[in-house]
Amino acid sequence: MKLGVIGCGYWGPNLVRSAVETNRCSQIFCCDPSPAALARVLRRFPCVSPVEHLDDIIHRCDALVVATPVSTHYDIAKRILERGKAVLVEKPLAISSLQARELAELAGDKDLTLMVGHTFVYSPAVRKVKEYIRDGILGDIYFLSSSRVNLGIHQKDIDVLWDLAPHDLSILLYWLEENPSCVSAIGRSCVGSLPDIASVHYRFPSGILANLEVSWLAPSKLRRTVLVGSRSMLIYDDTNLAEKVKLYDKGVDLRTPESFGEYQLTYRTGEIVSPNLSATEPLLIEINHFLDCVESGAQPETDGQTGLNVVLALEAASNSMRSNGQVMTIDYCAVPAPMPAAELAQAPPEFVPPTLP
Amino acid sequence: MKLGVIGCGYWGPNLVRSAVETNRCSQIFCCDPSPAALARVLRRFPCVSPVEHLDDIIHRCDALVVATPVSTHYDIAKRILERGKAVLVEKPLAISSLQARELAELAGDKDLTLMVGHTFVYSPAVRKVKEYIRDGILGDIYFLSSSRVNLGIHQKDIDVLWDLAPHDLSILLYWLEENPSCVSAIGRSCVGSLPDIASVHYRFPSGILANLEVSWLAPSKLRRTVLVGSRSMLIYDDTNLAEKVKLYDKGVDLRTPESFGEYQLTYRTGEIVSPNLSATEPLLIEINHFLDCVESGAQPETDGQTGLNVVLALEAASNSMRSNGQVMTIDYCAVPAPMPAAELAQAPPEFVPPTLP
Amino acid sequence: MKLGVIGCGYWGPNLVRSAVETNRCSQIFCCDPSPAALARVLRRFPCVSPVEHLDDIIHRCDALVVATPVSTHYDIAKRILERGKAVLVEKPLAISSLQARELAELAGDKDLTLMVGHTFVYSPAVRKVKEYIRDGILGDIYFLSSSRVNLGIHQKDIDVLWDLAPHDLSILLYWLEENPSCVSAIGRSCVGSLPDIASVHYRFPSGILANLEVSWLAPSKLRRTVLVGSRSMLIYDDTNLAEKVKLYDKGVDLRTPESFGEYQLTYRTGEIVSPNLSATEPLLIEINHFLDCVESGAQPETDGQTGLNVVLALEAASNSMRSNGQVMTIDYCAVPAPMPAAELAQAPPEFVPPTLP
Amino acid sequence: MKLGVIGCGYWGPNLVRSAVETNRCSQIFCCDPSPAALARVLRRFPCVSPVEHLDDIIHRCDALVVATPVSTHYDIAKRILERGKAVLVEKPLAISSLQARELAELAGDKDLTLMVGHTFVYSPAVRKVKEYIRDGILGDIYFLSSSRVNLGIHQKDIDVLWDLAPHDLSILLYWLEENPSCVSAIGRSCVGSLPDIASVHYRFPSGILANLEVSWLAPSKLRRTVLVGSRSMLIYDDTNLAEKVKLYDKGVDLRTPESFGEYQLTYRTGEIVSPNLSATEPLLIEINHFLDCVESGAQPETDGQTGLNVVLALEAASNSMRSNGQVMTIDYCAVPAPMPAAELAQAPPEFVPPTLP
Repeated sequence: MKLGVIGCGYWGPNLVRSAVETNRCSQIFCCDPSPAALARVLRRFPCVSPVEHLDDIIHRCDALVVATPVSTHYDIAKRILERGKAVLVEKPLAISSLQARELAELAGDKDLTLMVGHTFVYSPAVRKVKEYIRDGILGDIYFLSSSRVNLGIHQKDIDVLWDLAPHDLSILLYWLEENPSCVSAIGRSCVGSLPDIASVHYRFPSGILANLEVSWLAPSKLRRTVLVGSRSMLIYDDTNLAEKVKLYDKGVDLRTPESFGEYQLTYRTGEIVSPNLSATEPLLIEINHFLDCVESGAQPETDGQTGLNVVLALEAASNSMRSNGQVMTIDYCAVPAPMPAAELAQAPPEFVPPTLP
Repeated sequence: MKLGVIGCGYWGPNLVRSAVETNRCSQIFCCDPSPAALARVLRRFPCVSPVEHLDDIIHRCDALVVATPVSTHYDIAKRILERGKAVLVEKPLAISSLQARELAELAGDKDLTLMVGHTFVYSPAVRKVKEYIRDGILGDIYFLSSSRVNLGIHQKDIDVLWDLAPHDLSILLYWLEENPSCVSAIGRSCVGSLPDIASVHYRFPSGILANLEVSWLAPSKLRRTVLVGSRSMLIYDDTNLAEKVKLYDKGVDLRTPESFGEYQLTYRTGEIVSPNLSATEPLLIEINHFLDCVESGAQPETDGQTGLNVVLALEAASNSMRSNGQVMTIDYCAVPAPMPAAELAQAPPEFVPPTLP
Repeated sequence: MKLGVIGCGYWGPNLVRSAVETNRCSQIFCCDPSPAALARVLRRFPCVSPVEHLDDIIHRCDALVVATPVSTHYDIAKRILERGKAVLVEKPLAISSLQARELAELAGDKDLTLMVGHTFVYSPAVRKVKEYIRDGILGDIYFLSSSRVNLGIHQKDIDVLWDLAPHDLSILLYWLEENPSCVSAIGRSCVGSLPDIASVHYRFPSGILANLEVSWLAPSKLRRTVLVGSRSMLIYDDTNLAEKVKLYDKGVDLRTPESFGEYQLTYRTGEIVSPNLSATEPLLIEINHFLDCVESGAQPETDGQTGLNVVLALEAASNSMRSNGQVMTIDYCAVPAPMPAAELAQAPPEFVPPTLP
Repeated sequence: MKLGVIGCGYWGPNLVRSAVETNRCSQIFCCDPSPAALARVLRRFPCVSPVEHLDDIIHRCDALVVATPVSTHYDIAKRILERGKAVLVEKPLAISSLQARELAELAGDKDLTLMVGHTFVYSPAVRKVKEYIRDGILGDIYFLSSSRVNLGIHQKDIDVLWDLAPHDLSILLYWLEENPSCVSAIGRSCVGSLPDIASVHYRFPSGILANLEVSWLAPSKLRRTVLVGSRSMLIYDDTNLAEKVKLYDKGVDLRTPESFGEYQLTYRTGEIVSPNLSATEPLLIEINHFLDCVESGAQPETDGQTGLNVVLALEAASNSMRSNGQVMTIDYCAVPAPMPAAELAQAPPEFVPPTLP
């Protein structure tokens, strides 16, 4: 298979490296408007072939990976799908649900592989938690609380919500197998013009609540999600290399009163187990899954619909944040209005998609 | 001075112990409707004198401490003030702002000491942070985020918000010297009938945002507040005995562009300092402060107005939680409507205030 | 049963408190040459009766607890045994094996309960580890390494080795059920005249090695023992309240070569389990065990022989330390020479055993 | 400058990468008897030129880096120096002080650069601690204690002492500017035939004691050194990425008695400071320093004499370990006897130095 990687900025080289490691691509092509970025990749991976024009790389490849600024995802992915090629788009899929839905529908109509790079869904830790949930180890999930914060790079074309929350949302949707029904969010632009801290409350149809805290301004790095279930509790801490997942046999049991009288609560504290996790790199698993899907025609785990659901949840959170925290209902059927032009205009047109003829 | 402690349940004995340690009370009296609770205190503190009737203990003492269930605070504190005695009421001051305001006004009218037991305000860690803020070490505060969670005892007459958030609110109000202007909150009754997890967003007039997470259902104990300011950042972690406060010389500087062009962001990471803190017990400082105020007539740091402000912030959060997260404006002047009778009725009348004739 | 506690300094009041909590003593007596120390105890525990003379308290009680400075243990315990009473002596049993052996033999001859206060042997964490070892979970033990350090109080009549290492030694002897056969130790008197840091290597007949590091001069508190076995590994960290014991399914397996050639090593990393532990206070379990043994005549788990074995191991380590680390063989049969008089003289005769007529 | 890297096993590729990153080598050559290892390097670094014969790579280069198994260091480094070329030898410099001394003398006689790859000496954390010591922040050093343990790869030609302790020894010698005068060590071969755990006590002429614990068999990774000085204390923890160095303003002060009587001890606990450290990779600094020294003729910080001193300290520890912990004096002048042939024979001749004609 011939694979093309479009965009060689911060993340692109990792995709190239993983693609090389799969040993499954007969040739790897690469494209970026910045000659310096392109040269950097070629120095590290001399086996990769540079291509100047977007249409050219699409033409030469069977499948393409899009790692360009988020605001360009739609245009580039659409062009790829229109030429009948498979595409893996970095997260988030697009900057509006209108765009995301169009891409998902286009891929469906043309029966093409459209996958979104929600890498965490492919990480051994996240999959182990899914296993626990599926096996009923946690019981009914009551509540999730997640912090994804550190002193991090301020993105230029998206705010902290669109930068970091896609990780948490893709994980939540994978674990819970349902989409949030409403959201309220607050945020603030402390430095610069885009929100760099945000806190979001999601409510799911089953009653589950989820808190997401995302920030580019935090004294220490946190990548920590707490799950509270009726049978046990769990901490998934991605910065704790030795114990990423810890399962707590802890909880409160409600004892039916024997005769009249009050329900009795019993507190239970049992052992803590930290499972052993495979050390395979999630990105490598993701790329292999993409290649598998392209070859077999199977639906990717994080397909266009997943990507759209994440964007819908982000969009609603953004709307709530813009209205100072008002609760927003998320409608998964209605066609939403496009983002306000003023907002879009804020995104500096930094990345000139290479030579769209 | 003669001191009376009303209520000898979970917290009362700690107040008795601290009162004994001050060595400033000529006599300490004690009152509780449960003979067993009373006996437990007398066994540990044989110097304490038991009193049967509420009016009796008020009559015999110069100053009283109220450590009874929250729903009884108003009735008992009002009676004490009406008899012209000083009173320290455990937090929160009352179960409605209507009640809290009446108590604060009554104390003001009669020129009596009314203090609320917001113990954390007297802790060396919280005071050190206040010092940093006052000295401009943190610069402008952008954001606070606090987690106060563990597998904790489900209270019977108040939910998790009224149980745990008073701590965070009293700390915030002390640090920031302003009251939140609006709030949105979500919560859930996972076990039992009262909410046992909640997450609250407060917005302050100066633009500061604050996140509070409180829970009786969490796998591991957290007592952690993060402050992000324009000059530095700080973590106050009450469970980290060796380093409760950590000051991070970290931040983002915005450099004005020299000519035309974009603002430049520079990331700064300097040293981390953990100050040495006095080991004096906050409760002892609190009780001494109460005795000082009673003697001198000075206004307590956590006076009736502070207690009222905390209750107003709690009440608004409760209202938001009940309306599924709708943003509530907090009005510090208007007289709020009393809590719905249905809600009040939920609070089981567990504690029969001792013999109100 | 009538119980007497001799010595009301730092540790004595804890013994009184635990004795009170057992609810098994008809009367508790107390004795100390310092009127202030005695008064402090009486204030906290008004039910306790003070006694002035040592012979008097021995006379009045059925069983006695000795919590006086180590250098006085021998004289006081001997007198108690000679009067035919049971005795619990704080650790270490005596300042020489000569003394310790005499006490153990005296108790044996007179068929009296002699127990040594090696409290850690009664702690749920230490007992859980014992269970793992007994059940073969750890396989063959290869190695133990222990750190017991912090900025701690410099004792006046014993050095850091005699102050802290008895804890580790009693734990090791309990777990391994064998006594070390030789030792080398180094130490230094950094502040003051007695060694305040020491590091000790013990070798056991089965081949097990154990490292003990003890220090009164360390920046942060450590109470951490690592066990490495052929089947799994374990960390016992007494400062980690939530996870005192962690069992690691980790190890190296040696695969026999199929034909000629080298042995193959396989590295195994499985799950980590932290068992739930009873929260019962070890000291309470210890006192109850003492009372049980006095009543039933059963041999205490930490009897005179255990106390003697610990003292033999300490004495040999001291000898090695004094000779700059030379390896010392520990002879459990031979009668050792008494400690050099010069050394004994260093121990300030701070504690005047109350009125030995 | 033309640089040659000899040995492309585990560590060699890192040296190649760093050499590439310096951008100071006109050409980089590479040599390894294993075609597979060589191919791996060439795939990652296509700019590197492979060379088949040892003499050939020496001939073509101005300076060489030796990253072959320890048992071959002496032969290869000697040949390089004899051909008049500069050499950086991985640590430890050789498997005996006899060999190490000969290399150091040969480099001195021929006025050639001989540097040993004691990388930690070039790490920002270790250099910051050196700064503190030099500036008197720690006062007089009393004691050091180091743990370098994890479930690690069992080397085939050296035991755990020779594998891990060179790191600690090079750091100690750099910090203290003195060499240990005697040593006692214990160890055990738990799995396989070479010791895989060891604990070593070093004593320095100034009275400083140092404990080193090294192990390939430990449940969790530790890279932790504690320094205790008369003015403050310090923890250097290489696994704590956010706070590698922590300086504790803690200690005990000895107050001279005013009149007669005992010295008084005062315990001091002040703030904890974690300095900001440069993120530059130590290996890159090391390689740059080597190139600097080759160009300028300056003496490397970790020169042949340093390498010899480390080997002398290792050799004495090995001797002590072999004699079950007997204290060994380290003689820095006498020519030591060569290692027993039996011992040397244990080292499997795995690495065939490439084509020594």
